[in-house]
Amino acid sequence: MFEAAELGRKVSKEDYAAAVLKLRAELLQAHFALKDTKIPVVMIVSGAEAAGKGAVIHRLNEWLDPRGVDTHSFWRSSEEEAERPDYWRFWRALPRRGRIGIFFGSWYSQPILARVHRKIKSGQFDQAMDRIAFFERMLVDDGALIVKFWYHLSRKQQRKRLEELEADPNTRGQVLPVDWRHYKLYHRFLAVGEAAIRRTDAGHAPWHLVEAADRRYRELTTGQVLLAALRERLGQTGGAASPARAARKPAPAKARVTILDRVDLKQRLTAQDYAKQLERFQGKLTRLAWAAYAKKVSTVALFEGWDAAGKGSAIRRVTQAIDPRLYRIVPIAAPTDEERAHHYLWRFWRHLPRAGMTTIYDRSWYGRVLVERVEGFAREDEWSRAYLELNDFEEQLSQHGIALLKFWIQISKEEQLRRFKERQTVPFKQYKITDEDWRNRGKWDAYKAAVNDMVTHTSTTFAPWTLVAGNDKKFARVQILRTWCERLEALL
Amino acid sequence: MFEAAELGRKVSKEDYAAAVLKLRAELLQAHFALKDTKIPVVMIVSGAEAAGKGAVIHRLNEWLDPRGVDTHSFWRSSEEEAERPDYWRFWRALPRRGRIGIFFGSWYSQPILARVHRKIKSGQFDQAMDRIAFFERMLVDDGALIVKFWYHLSRKQQRKRLEELEADPNTRGQVLPVDWRHYKLYHRFLAVGEAAIRRTDAGHAPWHLVEAADRRYRELTTGQVLLAALRERLGQTGGAASPARAARKPAPAKARVTILDRVDLKQRLTAQDYAKQLERFQGKLTRLAWAAYAKKVSTVALFEGWDAAGKGSAIRRVTQAIDPRLYRIVPIAAPTDEERAHHYLWRFWRHLPRAGMTTIYDRSWYGRVLVERVEGFAREDEWSRAYLELNDFEEQLSQHGIALLKFWIQISKEEQLRRFKERQTVPFKQYKITDEDWRNRGKWDAYKAAVNDMVTHTSTTFAPWTLVAGNDKKFARVQILRTWCERLEALL
Repeated sequence: MFEAAELGRKVSKEDYAAAVLKLRAELLQAHFALKDTKIPVVMIVSGAEAAGKGAVIHRLNEWLDPRGVDTHSFWRSSEEEAERPDYWRFWRALPRRGRIGIFFGSWYSQPILARVHRKIKSGQFDQAMDRIAFFERMLVDDGALIVKFWYHLSRKQQRKRLEELEADPNTRGQVLPVDWRHYKLYHRFLAVGEAAIRRTDAGHAPWHLVEAADRRYRELTTGQVLLAALRERLGQTGGAASPARAARKPAPAKARVTILDRVDLKQRLTAQDYAKQLERFQGKLTRLAWAAYAKKVSTVALFEGWDAAGKGSAIRRVTQAIDPRLYRIVPIAAPTDEERAHHYLWRFWRHLPRAGMTTIYDRSWYGRVLVERVEGFAREDEWSRAYLELNDFEEQLSQHGIALLKFWIQISKEEQLRRFKERQTVPFKQYKITDEDWRNRGKWDAYKAAVNDMVTHTSTTFAPWTLVAGNDKKFARVQILRTWCERLEALL
Repeated sequence: MFEAAELGRKVSKEDYAAAVLKLRAELLQAHFALKDTKIPVVMIVSGAEAAGKGAVIHRLNEWLDPRGVDTHSFWRSSEEEAERPDYWRFWRALPRRGRIGIFFGSWYSQPILARVHRKIKSGQFDQAMDRIAFFERMLVDDGALIVKFWYHLSRKQQRKRLEELEADPNTRGQVLPVDWRHYKLYHRFLAVGEAAIRRTDAGHAPWHLVEAADRRYRELTTGQVLLAALRERLGQTGGAASPARAARKPAPAKARVTILDRVDLKQRLTAQDYAKQLERFQGKLTRLAWAAYAKKVSTVALFEGWDAAGKGSAIRRVTQAIDPRLYRIVPIAAPTDEERAHHYLWRFWRHLPRAGMTTIYDRSWYGRVLVERVEGFAREDEWSRAYLELNDFEEQLSQHGIALLKFWIQISKEEQLRRFKERQTVPFKQYKITDEDWRNRGKWDAYKAAVNDMVTHTSTTFAPWTLVAGNDKKFARVQILRTWCERLEALL
């Protein structure tokens, strides 16, 4: 999920100055409006060491009305605190209604660190996360707005930041030996952080993953996300009754670089290379599919992607390699009457494969956070809590030992146009292009934002997304087959 | 919590016949109304072996429209089921909107049995319960109504039932060796059952504890609870959006025997015995309070009870025994402005004692489910989810090693009247009696029902309620002191 925060996003000095001018006025306005409400605001600041979290908090204190903010740092426990149950120190620090409490370190810190240092087992960590989920739900039920930020640095960036801080006499003292020790545990920290986010990324208290390398970008994003969350919550008002749903969309979609922009669409294969690799990986997959059958390892694969991205033809290249007795394709279109009469996940549970078999979903449960979100078929509270529901679903599959493959086939907007036009002119492809395709294309930016959120919130260690470079169909097919083989090899 | 289901409640043949006549008509009516809604109803049947669960289900199938009910028994896993993730079999069985699904055995069965047989650790069990809580929440968010029944038998009753079943040639085959093995594990089963209920007793999917010894009582109660839940949910209608809140109040309060009726109010102490025992236990408590200080074991005690039950004078007898440096009394009246600006639990967290100290709450967090419930200061969704919140709070105290004492001082309605009148005539007691006391007295039955629910839902192994026989103040004080000493002795 952290790939989404390694996109090299920057804000220029000029853009920053202009944006901050506007943002400060709007933040102050929202903050004043908050005072007369019954809403306590809890802002959580977490993430990598040396990601500039302290500086962000300084900045917010500058931007907001200081009389309405309290900042709490949770550093070592005091003797007072150690003598009470763990959450005592958080309860005492909770903001009162109409105020903003900024939590630098929070209920997340101790379990995350304990897990990174292997002082607690994964089950205990999960329990701590469940306690957090219960606690946050309770606060939200009581009318609170919870806005959670996770500041991310790549390992290289973290090293660079630490070195910079050490080189500057003013900040040298800030870098403690423990920071370098944590740097060495970077990957473990990342894995635990991901698990923490995944287990607590609820619709009513969502995480915002912030790319932290650029100071101006991280400050501006933080301010904008906070503003959007405040505004949305204030818009509802009505008091403590209705659940808070923080905004997930800080900036207009098209202005944002997303994880999809990182897919290198120039990657191609020659016809010759394609033929060779296709043969190689299809052969391999044939053997692996039988091996999986013998070992009773099931496979669940799903395909998502833009219209005309080539999902169908890619799926055919996969199924050519698997014995028809071993797989089943489930095309996901509009739900049937019966499916509509159940929870939206019911139709996907139905088709789970028996031991050793494969189910391929052509489009999938991610419709909830893609088409249903963009077209408004699901309300915001429904699609925003779906990330947690989908991760939970996939975790159950993974715990059962199922190999889970998730492909998003990416193509450029231009390539889509080319294919649409081709479909219109080639007689046997005409049936494939409808008015709806053109309508969807008109919402490209909204879909792009939804895909970015989807990948960010649901790319997990046990069920990562594979972003497929789809402009060249040959390259895409081989990438899919190769990924499939690798996953099965790892599991068998 | 199970004491509340050992009250010997029975329904006579005549009452049963009359009540069933009415109930059937009303149930059918509600069931027909359900058909046109988007509400799937999930009814869970759990509890003791031989508690007549199967017979209850037969009866419901008789009473409801058979075309709108599906009954699912979860017995052994089929091969089909074993090949999928655990929840697959439950997903396939979920009722569609407008239908009732009766689950005989459910997602609770396997974790409970595994824990009883010590096949999983307490942490794993807690995780399983958290998964259930998440799952049920997801269904409710989707518009489902979940009604959960736990049928309880005392150990003696269970033995009797098993023997009866074995004696009858028709039912002999129904008693399996495993049932007798479970009978031997009765107490373990009870403890695990209690933990399961406590961790999943959410406002949106509450448990109903049914006293199962009398066939007519258990059948009638089940039908009435189901009817009340259906009616309440149908009253809301509006579709899938609003959370389902099942009724917690099957029968009119005054018609019900509650756990309070089991307190033997005739218990008395002579002045002589009182003097002796008071001295004995006060002396003991003095020593224990210092020992607790030395060992850093904190104590949290709370007092609830009817107006004029003698809370204040009982607290004085306790504090006489404890060094003033070691304790603090926190009287809970209407919240201050500052307290009102926070979550209702905040004011109680604030006052938690330091290591080795004692905090005595004169009235407590249980106001949420007593006065706030009865007077309507808290909405039903608020007070009904509070049981889970309060249990979670107390679990945190208990996990921190705090000794937790909860006293409900019970007096009869007549005794209260006597004391009210006395207060009115004795000059130095007049300040103690207000119009509000008389108003509260007018709501005796509503309070009684609320107290019964409170004790049922929050009497846990780590924080049991002590029901104090308060008609004789001397007896009450000694009972409290003795309980206090025993708890500290057990912990030190």
